[in-house]
Amino acid sequence: MKGERTAIIGVGLLGGSLGLALKRRHGARVVGWNHRASSRRKASKLMSVAPTLPAALEGAKTVVLCAHSGSIASFLKGILPLLSPKTLLLDVSSVKGEIVREASRVPGAKDHFVPCHPMAGKEKSGPSYADPDLYRGRIVFLTPLKGSSRDLVQRASHFWRSVGAVPLVLTAGTHDRLVAMTSHLPHLLSGALMNLYSSRAKTQPLLGSAVGTGFRDMTRIAGGSPSMWTDIMRMNSKEVLSLLFAYRRTLGKLEKELRKGTSGRWKTFFEKARSGRESLR
Amino acid sequence: MKGERTAIIGVGLLGGSLGLALKRRHGARVVGWNHRASSRRKASKLMSVAPTLPAALEGAKTVVLCAHSGSIASFLKGILPLLSPKTLLLDVSSVKGEIVREASRVPGAKDHFVPCHPMAGKEKSGPSYADPDLYRGRIVFLTPLKGSSRDLVQRASHFWRSVGAVPLVLTAGTHDRLVAMTSHLPHLLSGALMNLYSSRAKTQPLLGSAVGTGFRDMTRIAGGSPSMWTDIMRMNSKEVLSLLFAYRRTLGKLEKELRKGTSGRWKTFFEKARSGRESLR
Repeated sequence: MKGERTAIIGVGLLGGSLGLALKRRHGARVVGWNHRASSRRKASKLMSVAPTLPAALEGAKTVVLCAHSGSIASFLKGILPLLSPKTLLLDVSSVKGEIVREASRVPGAKDHFVPCHPMAGKEKSGPSYADPDLYRGRIVFLTPLKGSSRDLVQRASHFWRSVGAVPLVLTAGTHDRLVAMTSHLPHLLSGALMNLYSSRAKTQPLLGSAVGTGFRDMTRIAGGSPSMWTDIMRMNSKEVLSLLFAYRRTLGKLEKELRKGTSGRWKTFFEKARSGRESLR
Repeated sequence: MKGERTAIIGVGLLGGSLGLALKRRHGARVVGWNHRASSRRKASKLMSVAPTLPAALEGAKTVVLCAHSGSIASFLKGILPLLSPKTLLLDVSSVKGEIVREASRVPGAKDHFVPCHPMAGKEKSGPSYADPDLYRGRIVFLTPLKGSSRDLVQRASHFWRSVGAVPLVLTAGTHDRLVAMTSHLPHLLSGALMNLYSSRAKTQPLLGSAVGTGFRDMTRIAGGSPSMWTDIMRMNSKEVLSLLFAYRRTLGKLEKELRKGTSGRWKTFFEKARSGRESLR
């Protein structure tokens, strides 16, 4: 991969971190591009930045689209005609079903594009938080389009291994179901908790003094990018909805337990939670 | 406070950390005691341990009850008759309303006992996790009994300052309302999320590979002590119930948004959550 050119379209936290990881580990040439001039200026602190999108794509063996889930499909249509025949195109967005469906309808997409989702991130966004170790040891889900060659998918896997990540191929449907449970539902719950706190804080001036590490842990992800999470809720609504329904039903049962005011089933509930937590890898 | 004797009844995470903090900072004499012989052996790695409860209390200027919320009242009745006239008695448990109500009915309690709740802890319990810095910079809520002298409450405040904590006096009712929002509801939500995950993991073998830092953050507190949290849910059921009801109603609204499958109000929801999170102290 040494000397090969990689274009990063959208140099934020994920794109910036990827650029730093590639530069550091392989001496690869990395070129970034952002839509807005102000973002291009920020990006230029991390990597060389092309003045135009076609200039960024010029001669790139690998192009990584680091945009939110909602804009991947339209980006794809704009970028595909500009790629060399052998260029590998990846993304890093959080929802895969809708992207795979839309990309499958774009002629030629299967010859370039391997949809990807690295399980890496922070609650902070922007290139100033970029970290060359962001991907190290992290799972990256690959949800290839129907008809993509095995070679293309292997190149995608190889790319992620080169920045220390662990590629894992599965269907877009399975992917969306998994991350709805481990990421999208938790994000929604965290946001709702944060908003309930804010509404109570208006009339309870001492509330801030009762905030400890537990509350901070529970609301850390509520600090994520609103536009990114809006895309995710729209694009993975079915899976999130099914889990939210199940979760809310559980809360309804716990409400009944609280109403009784006895110890009831709490011990079993918390024991199950603790042993579940301890068995997380 | 140098040379003064402090007795710690219940040397677990909180009691053990307190003992380490006192010993390190003031050369004070600290004596611990646990109900079970096996726990006394563990505690003896941190501090000198008395063979019996009366021996531990003998000559103590301050006695700190480090037991779960549910056992404070009965402990109180057993310990009060053994105290010297000037001994200060504190606890560190998480629910204060019921404890204040019960203690108020115990003759002489107001002359010794100042109910306390330090906003300090870890999801791990036991003296092996003890940390002399556990209380540094942390708020400790004091909810004095009716009729306690100002001097007694000031001694309690002074005690907490001596281990680096920040004492704050309020009513037990206000305390229970605050921590229901910042600690008890979040704990219940975290446990319910962990249990939903576990039930899904049975049929989704890849679920563990989709667990990232966000999910870990959201479920960290689910690892807490089941018996402690069972006490808390029973003893603060009214406040937790009222918040759980409000939270569940919010989730119902979000379910409707998801059902529409549009971007709808998500942006506002997540923007509010982010700005709330950023304004936490």
